[in-house]
Amino acid sequence: MRATVMYKAGDVRVEAVPDAQIAEATDAVIRVSRACICGSDLWPYRDLAPTAAGRLMGHEAIGVVEAVGKAVQRFRRGDLVIMPFAFSDGSCDFCHEGLQTACSHGGFFGVGVVGGAQAEAVRVPFADGTLYKLPADEDDALIPSLLTLSDVMGTGHHAAVVARVQHGKRVAVIGDGAVGLCGVIAARRMGAEQIIVVGHHADRIALAQDFGGTDIVRERGEAAIEQVRALTGGTGVHSVLECVGSEDAIRTAVLITRAGGAIGRVGVPHYESTPASKQAFYANISVGGGPAPVRAYIEALMPDIMDGRIQPGRVFDRTIGLETVPEGYQSMNERRSLKIMIRP
Amino acid sequence: MRATVMYKAGDVRVEAVPDAQIAEATDAVIRVSRACICGSDLWPYRDLAPTAAGRLMGHEAIGVVEAVGKAVQRFRRGDLVIMPFAFSDGSCDFCHEGLQTACSHGGFFGVGVVGGAQAEAVRVPFADGTLYKLPADEDDALIPSLLTLSDVMGTGHHAAVVARVQHGKRVAVIGDGAVGLCGVIAARRMGAEQIIVVGHHADRIALAQDFGGTDIVRERGEAAIEQVRALTGGTGVHSVLECVGSEDAIRTAVLITRAGGAIGRVGVPHYESTPASKQAFYANISVGGGPAPVRAYIEALMPDIMDGRIQPGRVFDRTIGLETVPEGYQSMNERRSLKIMIRP
Repeated sequence: MRATVMYKAGDVRVEAVPDAQIAEATDAVIRVSRACICGSDLWPYRDLAPTAAGRLMGHEAIGVVEAVGKAVQRFRRGDLVIMPFAFSDGSCDFCHEGLQTACSHGGFFGVGVVGGAQAEAVRVPFADGTLYKLPADEDDALIPSLLTLSDVMGTGHHAAVVARVQHGKRVAVIGDGAVGLCGVIAARRMGAEQIIVVGHHADRIALAQDFGGTDIVRERGEAAIEQVRALTGGTGVHSVLECVGSEDAIRTAVLITRAGGAIGRVGVPHYESTPASKQAFYANISVGGGPAPVRAYIEALMPDIMDGRIQPGRVFDRTIGLETVPEGYQSMNERRSLKIMIRP
Repeated sequence: MRATVMYKAGDVRVEAVPDAQIAEATDAVIRVSRACICGSDLWPYRDLAPTAAGRLMGHEAIGVVEAVGKAVQRFRRGDLVIMPFAFSDGSCDFCHEGLQTACSHGGFFGVGVVGGAQAEAVRVPFADGTLYKLPADEDDALIPSLLTLSDVMGTGHHAAVVARVQHGKRVAVIGDGAVGLCGVIAARRMGAEQIIVVGHHADRIALAQDFGGTDIVRERGEAAIEQVRALTGGTGVHSVLECVGSEDAIRTAVLITRAGGAIGRVGVPHYESTPASKQAFYANISVGGGPAPVRAYIEALMPDIMDGRIQPGRVFDRTIGLETVPEGYQSMNERRSLKIMIRP
């Protein structure tokens, strides 16, 4: 089958690889109907050290079940499913608690252990615990929005949950990428009254405003901090959704949070220590977040998509075939595309 | 009047200072019935730069109201009151939210702005918002326990609240000082099933066990991390109460927290950045805490003291008069005393 392989920073190829197949009785194999290029794929695209074996890329998908192992009970051939970016056994304590990204037997797609979703097909470990059956068909107009439940919408929602977004309160979203935009949707959905978006790409900002952003801060660093304070009567916001992952972003997050407030960070951190630790302490600010248990959130978010109340699929601004994926990486890396959908 | 003044690290004196008196209509002056030396007083005792004016020390007290300003409505001369370590107006948004340590007009005793409590008397700004009237008399046997509501018991409780201690779950308390010991009481009170105390002073450990500690880890650093993991089936604890404030302590806290767990830090941080930030992220661990709004917690904790269900007053292992305070600092700094009560 054809699949996307990254060999080093900037070197992404689509090539023939061994077919995805059942290896364990709890596996399923899905034919990929839609996949994505993720903002987090751009980190290795910028800094992956050369690897002879290559890394199979992609961790977001909607697909059709092609085969199931003997122990799989909840799915059968032909089911249309969402594949969250992490696989999880569905039976350990963490899965029961709704933190599937800490599953005792779980792991992540597209990091080389199992295959990636930017491919014709992918093996899904623990199919019963991992997959979610979709109440839609493969060509439904809602498919792009449903596809975001595999990562970015669930991740934006996680940031909002961890940041304790509440009805009538003030929120800031740092980052105007797909996750940040989904964070705006999540904050609005949870009733935030003021949603300040910290970002500076004109087209993304327009979308953020459509999604419910009430104020835009185009600066960074100290200037951004001052502007957020000015927009909040000097106190800062109750909740910050940190959707970038840089040291500057998390520092800004701390310094714009109101005393007693919370930060939900979902941008993969590219820093070893969290800065402004004393400032966070004296203001009783909590810093949480991590890989979103998107599997846990599908059920809560799905009805809002089915009823059209939220439209996270609008983050996709381009659709490409599998063979165009290498150019897609380049396009996203150069910020010419916001988020790319793949139809293998 | 006589009061405790610190001039530089190691230089604490009891001297004559101007009498505490009403300065604002919302003030009260209390005669100090009991005060304390706090573990946090030892930080300036170790590193305060020389100051010609001196710093008036002490922030924990029970006292008798001697005078009130014209605007004070809830207290009158003769009332026995708890003075929390922070003063707060009782009327701003933060006070209404129960975060009095972020009060818009608030501040802290014993940092030089207002007087300190290691004195014969102290001026209390915003008496109506700050003080709490005690249902006891000055010589009640429960006074030592009630005195801890001015700081250490409320602070230990805050750590437990922020660390989201829950019934039947696993907790670790880092530090066996007075706050750590009160953290053990708080964790037990909130129903924790396993309470691992990380500390190494024999007498304090014995008290920790009396208070409900179920396991003791006497090591530090990597060895402590390994031991906590071994005591928790490899997963770590749901909640960590970080009651020290050193970089090693907070790093240990992160590395012994179970995925999805929370850290409540109440040790004043002596580090600029919070370490192990990536580990915290990948495990979805949240780090929160700060100066405890002890004023908010008095109401909840008081009944447990009045009924004898908790006895935080047992952290006091020595009582001294005001003139002995300088030696008291030395004694606590050398770990010869756990926590000292002052009867001026």
